[in-house]
Amino acid sequence: MTVKQLSMPELVDACLELAVPGVGLWREPVAAYGVRATAKLVRDAGLAVTTLCRGGFLTATDPDGRAAALDDNRRAVEEAAALGTDTLVLVCGGLPAGSRDLRGARERIADALAELGPYAESHGVRLAIEALHPMYAADRCVVSTLAQALDLAERFPAHQVGVTVDTYHVWWDDSAPRQIARAGAGGRIHAFQLADWTTPLPAGVLDGRGQIGDGAIDMREWKGYVDAAGYTGPIEVELFNEGLWARDGRQVLAETAARFAEHVNPHGSAVGGPGDAR
Amino acid sequence: MTVKQLSMPELVDACLELAVPGVGLWREPVAAYGVRATAKLVRDAGLAVTTLCRGGFLTATDPDGRAAALDDNRRAVEEAAALGTDTLVLVCGGLPAGSRDLRGARERIADALAELGPYAESHGVRLAIEALHPMYAADRCVVSTLAQALDLAERFPAHQVGVTVDTYHVWWDDSAPRQIARAGAGGRIHAFQLADWTTPLPAGVLDGRGQIGDGAIDMREWKGYVDAAGYTGPIEVELFNEGLWARDGRQVLAETAARFAEHVNPHGSAVGGPGDAR
Repeated sequence: MTVKQLSMPELVDACLELAVPGVGLWREPVAAYGVRATAKLVRDAGLAVTTLCRGGFLTATDPDGRAAALDDNRRAVEEAAALGTDTLVLVCGGLPAGSRDLRGARERIADALAELGPYAESHGVRLAIEALHPMYAADRCVVSTLAQALDLAERFPAHQVGVTVDTYHVWWDDSAPRQIARAGAGGRIHAFQLADWTTPLPAGVLDGRGQIGDGAIDMREWKGYVDAAGYTGPIEVELFNEGLWARDGRQVLAETAARFAEHVNPHGSAVGGPGDAR
Repeated sequence: MTVKQLSMPELVDACLELAVPGVGLWREPVAAYGVRATAKLVRDAGLAVTTLCRGGFLTATDPDGRAAALDDNRRAVEEAAALGTDTLVLVCGGLPAGSRDLRGARERIADALAELGPYAESHGVRLAIEALHPMYAADRCVVSTLAQALDLAERFPAHQVGVTVDTYHVWWDDSAPRQIARAGAGGRIHAFQLADWTTPLPAGVLDGRGQIGDGAIDMREWKGYVDAAGYTGPIEVELFNEGLWARDGRQVLAETAARFAEHVNPHGSAVGGPGDAR
């Protein structure tokens, strides 16, 4: 998503050129290029698919809406498996129109996970609940903190359900470091994503994620927390930013790799040494 | 602020007409009308000043900036006392430019409160730390949860420092109800404010607070939490909303009183019975 202006082959070429060892993919561009074609493209390039984004939106109250959401999530699991990633990131969904019941919405997510967890496991895929910033609680994700995400995940086996730690969503939360430790102890850090916090936020607050190093978040501090929690998986940089999308995608990817080297991994290679990707 | 399009005398008239028993004032319109003139106006009308907004912005690192902030907060305390309110709401401040140190900023707030608390007490004024929504953590307030606000407040006597509970800022937080209970047990709920959460958020996310009943927040639920915590003080409706500001202020105030009756206090009078204002 950081460089959605690139076609799938351009993305793969740019990753190879910059020695970026893996890429997190989103379902829409994968569908546009074709799941099998994408899988072959990345496999032939030796590029890891770190995660697939995203499943979720599991808070509907009406039976048809719930059935459609479960169907869609099963397809997402299948796509993840086809792409060769073991992790499907979940954005769990906001409040249904007119509802004010956060607790009820969170319980419906748990109900859905009970169905989707075993299905994912049977495909070799883990679900990774992403705690989204509280500013998305109404319309996008009623899971607003890592504590809430873990409260949900821990009802299920860790190889079925874990969490996504994204700096953009949790950086303000002084309890997040101990929740990362809790997640690590349970083997539930299934994804780790970086974006920086820059202000002012744009209207709708979706596409204002800052380039690494441009904002208020100490990336090295958060990498330290997941390191200390035993996380050895990939680190994704996921920026939704109109300004970055308007630029040349290869330049943006090169800049992102350079920022990663400067702000996250100063003593490693440009995009992380061994252990930073699988 | 909900009806900032009204002049101070228009505001007082409109409150009397609607039997609104009290009003929370902001420093800028008070200064424009004059502190003494405002104090006389509301006193002669028999209208309570529920709180003064706002002090705060206590996170500067440079000595001049810190000294200026403390001076300004002492003036705010004096203004609150002159207006006859016992509560000064604090918006504590964001990160200084270029800083990524949330913890350090929070500690500087504590340092400032150690100076301002006794000064406020000597004027019969209590400081009320407002936990602001995490989307303001970088540029407005590094105190993002009631738990953090109470961690700060509890370093000082309750008659010096408490908290402001504002539904807009805390509604997403599943730990807020128990923090309200904690605040009530300590006699530290110094202000209670209502605004509804509506989406999409506007650019800059400052002026998108929804009219009561228009959004995702169950107002009665939150009133229940402060009631259960023993809170008997006033309930303020504080809406920053370009749409409301563009309308006739008296109409907006009447609508707000009606929404309050419908969504907050269905069995009381239009704007709350005895005990809802002091």
